[in-house]
Amino acid sequence: MKILYRLLLLTSCCASFTISAQTVHEKVKQFVQLNKNSLTDEYINFVAIPNVSGDSENIPLNTAFIQKMMEQRGIKSELLHGTTEGVNPAVYGEIKVPGATRTIAFYAHYDGQPVNPKQWTNGLEPFKPVFITKAVEHGGTIIDYKQGQPLNDDWRLTGRGSAEDKAGVMTILNAYDALKRSGIAPANNIKFFFEGEEEIGSPHLDEIFRNNKEKLQANVWIIVDGPRDVSGKKTIVFGARGYVNIDLTVYGAKRPLHSGNYGNWAPNPAMRLAQLLAGMQDDKGNVLIPGFYDDMIPLTPEERNAIAAIPDAGEALKQELGVAKPDGDGKPLLELLSLPSLSIDGIQSANTGKLATNVIPATAEASLNLRLVPGNDVQRQVQKVKDYIQAKGYHILDHDPTDEERAQFGFLIKVTTISGGYIAQRTPMNLAIAQSVIKAVQSTVDYPVLLKPMMGGSLPLFLFEKYLGTKPVVIPVVNYDNNQHAENENVQMRFLWEGIETMAAIMMIKSQN
Amino acid sequence: MKILYRLLLLTSCCASFTISAQTVHEKVKQFVQLNKNSLTDEYINFVAIPNVSGDSENIPLNTAFIQKMMEQRGIKSELLHGTTEGVNPAVYGEIKVPGATRTIAFYAHYDGQPVNPKQWTNGLEPFKPVFITKAVEHGGTIIDYKQGQPLNDDWRLTGRGSAEDKAGVMTILNAYDALKRSGIAPANNIKFFFEGEEEIGSPHLDEIFRNNKEKLQANVWIIVDGPRDVSGKKTIVFGARGYVNIDLTVYGAKRPLHSGNYGNWAPNPAMRLAQLLAGMQDDKGNVLIPGFYDDMIPLTPEERNAIAAIPDAGEALKQELGVAKPDGDGKPLLELLSLPSLSIDGIQSANTGKLATNVIPATAEASLNLRLVPGNDVQRQVQKVKDYIQAKGYHILDHDPTDEERAQFGFLIKVTTISGGYIAQRTPMNLAIAQSVIKAVQSTVDYPVLLKPMMGGSLPLFLFEKYLGTKPVVIPVVNYDNNQHAENENVQMRFLWEGIETMAAIMMIKSQN
Repeated sequence: MKILYRLLLLTSCCASFTISAQTVHEKVKQFVQLNKNSLTDEYINFVAIPNVSGDSENIPLNTAFIQKMMEQRGIKSELLHGTTEGVNPAVYGEIKVPGATRTIAFYAHYDGQPVNPKQWTNGLEPFKPVFITKAVEHGGTIIDYKQGQPLNDDWRLTGRGSAEDKAGVMTILNAYDALKRSGIAPANNIKFFFEGEEEIGSPHLDEIFRNNKEKLQANVWIIVDGPRDVSGKKTIVFGARGYVNIDLTVYGAKRPLHSGNYGNWAPNPAMRLAQLLAGMQDDKGNVLIPGFYDDMIPLTPEERNAIAAIPDAGEALKQELGVAKPDGDGKPLLELLSLPSLSIDGIQSANTGKLATNVIPATAEASLNLRLVPGNDVQRQVQKVKDYIQAKGYHILDHDPTDEERAQFGFLIKVTTISGGYIAQRTPMNLAIAQSVIKAVQSTVDYPVLLKPMMGGSLPLFLFEKYLGTKPVVIPVVNYDNNQHAENENVQMRFLWEGIETMAAIMMIKSQN
Repeated sequence: MKILYRLLLLTSCCASFTISAQTVHEKVKQFVQLNKNSLTDEYINFVAIPNVSGDSENIPLNTAFIQKMMEQRGIKSELLHGTTEGVNPAVYGEIKVPGATRTIAFYAHYDGQPVNPKQWTNGLEPFKPVFITKAVEHGGTIIDYKQGQPLNDDWRLTGRGSAEDKAGVMTILNAYDALKRSGIAPANNIKFFFEGEEEIGSPHLDEIFRNNKEKLQANVWIIVDGPRDVSGKKTIVFGARGYVNIDLTVYGAKRPLHSGNYGNWAPNPAMRLAQLLAGMQDDKGNVLIPGFYDDMIPLTPEERNAIAAIPDAGEALKQELGVAKPDGDGKPLLELLSLPSLSIDGIQSANTGKLATNVIPATAEASLNLRLVPGNDVQRQVQKVKDYIQAKGYHILDHDPTDEERAQFGFLIKVTTISGGYIAQRTPMNLAIAQSVIKAVQSTVDYPVLLKPMMGGSLPLFLFEKYLGTKPVVIPVVNYDNNQHAENENVQMRFLWEGIETMAAIMMIKSQN
């Protein structure tokens, strides 16, 4: 028995040194084809576990599920904790491959954005994953899927995390499994790292990195998150914007007032907030806050060329999204995504529509989202917004106003940043390891893979550089129209299957590449 | 028995012709004093019945309760229906007094504004009336009141309708009961009329009036609604602003978008709405919509004098409400309330605070409330707002946009008026019957009753003139800080007791007055 086992290992070991990228791709594809039902059933169970970052009751069910997935694939796992109490742990595991000289580390996150179930439509619920025929806004309807029934690659599986970013966990672990169960040993040592606090700004990822610096060494970190290009083509991304959120509360009278008995006298905080926000942008979406575009490090000529090589998605998006006049004054989408941005996440004051009552509200709230590019500093960018608000005559508080503050100041606002936010990061596209990753992904498709210097979304990529000294490269796997961060989040099944193929190819990067 | 009964009737009848206003007041006061517990218990049960205008299940429970109250007071009642199906009926009753030559009709409404239970605080619920020690914003807490326990006039009873306007029904019916059970016959025929659709703009009151024109004839209509002056003094109001509500929905992309992947490109409907609203007012609350202040009929010198005789509540309100810089550029409150107004009832786009996610919302909504003064026409006033919106480059829809409309227009907005709204009305203060009402109310207090040419709030007063040919006079009974139309609505008990005294005095108006 022992000899036979060693012989098998040897066979699989040696195959890995001679097998072509093409053969690996075929075998992985075949594995996926034969196992779609079991892979899907497991994934449905995974997505069904509520995963909002702050949900301390359900977060452990997610880590337990992932550890079981790893155990079933022969990967020994452990939980990595921060120094702070109560941090959602990362799930970690590694595979050492005899003879491998390089280590590739894979990152995904299992936590998800908050959900407001009332906003999910057409019978969909955040944590009851079901298949829909197509996107809801294109008339997609729920499929009465029974376990074991044939699957369709066009179907979309719905649920918070289905796209961002349990899809990352799913594709990484199954890529390894596909290789293993096809008798192919990875060409590199593999590390698996699944974070649990990405959607709240990865506030303790630095602690986890510092506490496990040796363990987390790698030649490259592959970050599996975000959507593929709107063209649907495979995409590699070499950087990400940073971000910070700012919450604003404008105060009117102490209590809501009858709009008849006080209208024309009582200040309306909803109107004042509207006036404050209105001055932050022009009608083309350019941010008017003084100095907002200062500090940024411009793209290199090489990065500009990479952007220019990608057909602008703008025209297609206009039709797809029903937008006749986008912001940005006609600039290509990718160019706009390499600039800092400010957008309103939400506004809320009293009620609207059928719930509206004729009151002058007591408060009005807005949540702002700022995206940062290389060169921007989080605090400096927030300060620009605060300076603008102050210049508009507001007294800025970090708490609800006291009676004294109400008596003293005509314009009162609370400005808070819930999470710390973080800076942007860019990895040079011409690094040898970056070139190897490009080649691996390219081996899985017959069109040129899209190379993006920056993604518009945010990932804490700077932490990999700062605490582990390793450059990250982002490989998004899911469809762009996945509604991540919103209601009706979904992943189209073909993107999961292709994601598995992509991850497997990266695990097979060869030294001579 | 029959002779004794007649003798009693005769006594009570004759007393009414000789009894002084002072004696009536004493007797009614005594009645209230002796019956506070039973009056309160009945009122708690009344307020506990959900009364949102559109709640077709519970509206009949309100009319049944009122009819039972009337029956117990010896008033035969009936329901008056509109011509349209499904109209919330008015409850009507009348008392003919032998020898009386004049008829006084009393109006109140039993329906209430919509409720959002989540917004009620400190343990309060819209339809579980409880006592609180004082206003919630001044630290009021719930009292563990047991039936029959001594009551305190400072306590406030909470619940939707507790102030507006079940307090009207309560004080009118108990004023009649107080006279009757004190052996005093009213000096006038009395008509009782309780509407069920005031909070949705009285859309069928005209039908009810037309269908019952003869039945509803009176020498004066006493409208019991709205709050007394902020000074707490008894107040008579000779007119009311009209109103109309406008709902706005600004459209962005077809679906919410990740603010990272689309920020700087996708138009943000929350920002566009803010910019649209911001231009409607200056920072002093003056409406900038062209022509907004045209059409209005100015106050007469007599009406201006009446306003000047009332100390401006502005300074007290600033302290009470925690407002350092009210709108209106320092003009007195009552002057501002005689101008047309525009205020934001509510704004809503995606989510804020802890529920916020980093999306670019798909839509942003606002509900506007316009108040009208004599001279303003509802449609003309709405058109001014629409013209302004159009001038800002928007294409106005009355439905969600089609794909074709999305492709054609860069700026899309839905503008709807949920209810029709109505015009303002003013009754000349120098009419003989108006002077009699003033004298009656004045007889119950030892300070000068406040006379207001207009109230800021809206009542369908024009209908009384238009369909019944009768001038209305408004007698508000409740405390000004009652949170009507908002969460934590409440009535301070002393205002109910004083309201009963006021109504009884009006029922005793004498012909020679």
